[in-house]
Amino acid sequence: MKKDIKNYIRDIPNFPKEGIIFKDITPVLKDPIVFSFAVNEISSYFTNKGVNKVVSMEARGFIFGSVISYILKCGFIPVRKKGKLPYKTISIEYELEYGKDILEIHEDAIENGDNVLIVDDVLATGGTAKAVASLVEKCGGKVVGMGFLVELTFLNPRKKLEGYDIYSLVKY
Amino acid sequence: MKKDIKNYIRDIPNFPKEGIIFKDITPVLKDPIVFSFAVNEISSYFTNKGVNKVVSMEARGFIFGSVISYILKCGFIPVRKKGKLPYKTISIEYELEYGKDILEIHEDAIENGDNVLIVDDVLATGGTAKAVASLVEKCGGKVVGMGFLVELTFLNPRKKLEGYDIYSLVKY
Repeated sequence: MKKDIKNYIRDIPNFPKEGIIFKDITPVLKDPIVFSFAVNEISSYFTNKGVNKVVSMEARGFIFGSVISYILKCGFIPVRKKGKLPYKTISIEYELEYGKDILEIHEDAIENGDNVLIVDDVLATGGTAKAVASLVEKCGGKVVGMGFLVELTFLNPRKKLEGYDIYSLVKY
Repeated sequence: MKKDIKNYIRDIPNFPKEGIIFKDITPVLKDPIVFSFAVNEISSYFTNKGVNKVVSMEARGFIFGSVISYILKCGFIPVRKKGKLPYKTISIEYELEYGKDILEIHEDAIENGDNVLIVDDVLATGGTAKAVASLVEKCGGKVVGMGFLVELTFLNPRKKLEGYDIYSLVKY
């Protein structure tokens, strides 16, 4: 099943801008057997590692992170773009594949000693994952690991994320 | 437990703009027992109603919709703001509580005869839910029901949504 997942990921050339080949993962979501296989696999890699919170970034990250938090019986913490979270926030500016951005987390989302799993759909340059890890650590949490559906190894994301336990289900 | 959920929903005055009292549901997500209770309750209302796809709108809708699709063993279909979905889309313009907007769905997301459950975190005026239902129907799907964590009954959303089977876990 694992290698078949690539049959459910399609290339979209020139999205979101000229020259980028975007990995569209929506066919994975559409098939309940493939989708549940994917989230079960990612979850099972992090079972018994003491995770008590799953943190994901909007918007596609929410789709995987919330299900994985449900499977692992953890709290779910959303990280969002600037101005989207309603309560008091802690923020971080970071460089991403296509420019610069600011991410925010609620200031009461992470407590000292929390063991956090960061989840997103695609690990590309690693810039977003690194920013989210820094946010979590700024709040007193420990990043136990990072889980992804897809890893774009040709962008070398692990170079930016040394020391973290990273699991990705499929690699390009 | 059901009525206790209100203890996990906080009012944020003047968000996203002056005069609006926003229902912040992130404390529900943060507590794994409360979050799993909520998604299990919504799912169980729609069990055995023939649902084969769950459709949710970004971004908070994804958090509930994806878990509910996992529980109900259905496909998950994201509806997004204009320009966010990478593949060919069908779109709809609609009025929402704070202005106007365009929502899109992938043109191959819904097939003729699909039985769709629409899921979002908060049912407010019903404008967004109505737009998503119209999109699903335009694609040949049947809207079997709509599930929400919170319903703001004082905004009369059901007036806009007559004929649909609506379940909301907590009401204000």
